[in-house]
Amino acid sequence: MFDQSLTAAQEQDLNDRLAAKRDEFILPDGVIYLDGNSLGPLPHKAAARIHQTVSHEWGDGLIRSWNDAHWVDLPRKIGAKIAPLIGASPENVIMADQTSVNLFKVLSLALALRPDRKKIVTERRNFPSDNYIAEGVIKQLGQGHELIHVEDPADLHAAIDDDVAVVVLTHVNYRDGRMLDMAGLTKSAHDAGALIIWDLAHSAGATPINLAACDVDFAIGCTYKYLNGGPGAPAFLYAAGRHLSHGKQPLSGWFAHQSPFAFEADFTPAPDINQFLCGTPPVLSAAALDAALDVWEGVSLQDLRAKSLALTDYFIALIESRCPQHGLTLITPRDHGSRGSHVSFTHPDGGYAIIAALIAEGVIGDFRAPDILRFGFTPLYTSFSDVWHAVDKLTAILDNKTWDQAQFHARKVVT
Amino acid sequence: MFDQSLTAAQEQDLNDRLAAKRDEFILPDGVIYLDGNSLGPLPHKAAARIHQTVSHEWGDGLIRSWNDAHWVDLPRKIGAKIAPLIGASPENVIMADQTSVNLFKVLSLALALRPDRKKIVTERRNFPSDNYIAEGVIKQLGQGHELIHVEDPADLHAAIDDDVAVVVLTHVNYRDGRMLDMAGLTKSAHDAGALIIWDLAHSAGATPINLAACDVDFAIGCTYKYLNGGPGAPAFLYAAGRHLSHGKQPLSGWFAHQSPFAFEADFTPAPDINQFLCGTPPVLSAAALDAALDVWEGVSLQDLRAKSLALTDYFIALIESRCPQHGLTLITPRDHGSRGSHVSFTHPDGGYAIIAALIAEGVIGDFRAPDILRFGFTPLYTSFSDVWHAVDKLTAILDNKTWDQAQFHARKVVT
Repeated sequence: MFDQSLTAAQEQDLNDRLAAKRDEFILPDGVIYLDGNSLGPLPHKAAARIHQTVSHEWGDGLIRSWNDAHWVDLPRKIGAKIAPLIGASPENVIMADQTSVNLFKVLSLALALRPDRKKIVTERRNFPSDNYIAEGVIKQLGQGHELIHVEDPADLHAAIDDDVAVVVLTHVNYRDGRMLDMAGLTKSAHDAGALIIWDLAHSAGATPINLAACDVDFAIGCTYKYLNGGPGAPAFLYAAGRHLSHGKQPLSGWFAHQSPFAFEADFTPAPDINQFLCGTPPVLSAAALDAALDVWEGVSLQDLRAKSLALTDYFIALIESRCPQHGLTLITPRDHGSRGSHVSFTHPDGGYAIIAALIAEGVIGDFRAPDILRFGFTPLYTSFSDVWHAVDKLTAILDNKTWDQAQFHARKVVT
Repeated sequence: MFDQSLTAAQEQDLNDRLAAKRDEFILPDGVIYLDGNSLGPLPHKAAARIHQTVSHEWGDGLIRSWNDAHWVDLPRKIGAKIAPLIGASPENVIMADQTSVNLFKVLSLALALRPDRKKIVTERRNFPSDNYIAEGVIKQLGQGHELIHVEDPADLHAAIDDDVAVVVLTHVNYRDGRMLDMAGLTKSAHDAGALIIWDLAHSAGATPINLAACDVDFAIGCTYKYLNGGPGAPAFLYAAGRHLSHGKQPLSGWFAHQSPFAFEADFTPAPDINQFLCGTPPVLSAAALDAALDVWEGVSLQDLRAKSLALTDYFIALIESRCPQHGLTLITPRDHGSRGSHVSFTHPDGGYAIIAALIAEGVIGDFRAPDILRFGFTPLYTSFSDVWHAVDKLTAILDNKTWDQAQFHARKVVT
């Protein structure tokens, strides 16, 4: 039996090499935040930066700030900051639009690169927006492409055959936290002559990622979860160097032009990653994100991953030892190699109300219909003591069955 | 001869029914800002709101603010605030993405609604991004659509024949400020069986617009110019009620789903204007925009237009009377019915340097390659005295030929 005491949790905190990072975030008093996989908290630097950008750059600088405050450089600057977190070179990553828009761009391009193939492979349990976008691309093209929804991740390799044009997968599943084998599935795709797109929404900033080493074609991702960029922060896009010569993504707005400010009549794509931009970048949101990414200075991704696994192991162990009889069933893989940085349990009838009761007690987790309780563990600011207190409160709620009286403000957006 | 004295300008300011609105903006000391048609200045309310959204809603509220602070409602709420400025019902307007992305959506849909027609009519001198997007849609569809670039706006009616699927026009041209006849051209399009899309980037908030009365099919527009939403602020999209039943825009991200938070496997479009959303809305940028739109409370668009024309008339008259011999040539229409709210002159060789010299003197106008000096007149905060002083400084620069020594910080983004 492991030591279930709070003291043991506090000892782990004393040995936490990332502990000092917690002070870089604004975390409200009385809250244990286990939902940073949905919306990361506010970094102090982001708060200061947005004030600077609004008051001084916009307010005083006005139009001059596009140059003087380097607004025009934000997409590349931010891409370069994200690059080391995902195993990419700076010139292959750019901040642009929202994740779904970016998927439309790279999926359209990928299909154009495999004109003789009509299958797109994805998971049934992929984040729905990705599959909706694939449906949208297929309808727009009208060429009879077929979206293959694989039910069991174990069947993915077998589904990638010589008719597949593109594989679209999410690295870490938004519901159960299962992590797919990026290296192996990318190899399967390439062996079959297909291209692959990885959605990193639930893994960028949560675990080391090696896009270049895995030879990934394209990746897209979200910055408002583990990257703490703020609500609805702009997304990012990765393209391998070999895919920068096509210039064929269809959302060819002026920022994708090789000379946006020459106002030429015809479109000539930028020769670099800028070709994946579209319209004018959202400066206020981008400024917050740019500052939020500075939190990563000095962070070892190996330390990050080690702490993530320690936190999720600890949470699972505490739950299973302290409240084994209350109907919670772990759906997140126990195998480290298949686990992201959040943990989900199902509960046969109380999931929604249990989360509501927890939130009322200051522990912010997440509910996913129909029966999933989801908890995110973000190594930059989640402590082992947080985990201990969260489980302690959850145990009390389950022991005392206080959850059925709980009021719950249904949150509409919780990805 | 009209009264060219500063006193006469000051008298006009005393009679200005919109004069009080100027106090709602932060305008830096020593600056006369004639570039609000590129980036509107910071409204006091927007500065306060972004602080509230960052510190309290994001910082303290965290994920709960999607509901508690109504983040999820921002796209519709902002659409409803823009609606009266463009002659639309609230249910037909939504904030979404960037202008170019929105054009991609509505142009794709419009072409799908006219499957047997292959021509898209636009102006050669349209804002380039719109034409680039049309190129992108055409290439992606691969159905042999043709983009017809009309050289002279007078030829537009004749170009709209029975082979035309869609007409894509910008209401007020970004270079010369020419305003097109929205009612007449929309009727020409419909008479020919075509659909029409209007880009309102340089007219929303600059002049009354009557989308519903003109029976326009789709419109898109920008909020960081005359709507003062901040740099790169989210764009808007209008669709006529008859076009809300198709559900076919291709960027079908989860926010376009009828039940985004049910996480259904397959895409079912929202039955309302939400179907034109795509990914998660950019909350920080949207919050600033939402507050900026409150500046329009109590503004009569008739007063706005009257002042806009008075300002541009006055600017033109002062320039032509005070510096007739210096090579400036008006390219903005003198006819009120064909003029937006900015005025452009060409200069044979000094455009760039003259604007640079003006900026060094605190008068912020705009240069457009190859030879255009562009000045925006924004009735909510531009005064007649501003115009007088701007012309006075310009005259001095031209009289003394100080412009050839001027330093100029080339602004890369100036639309």
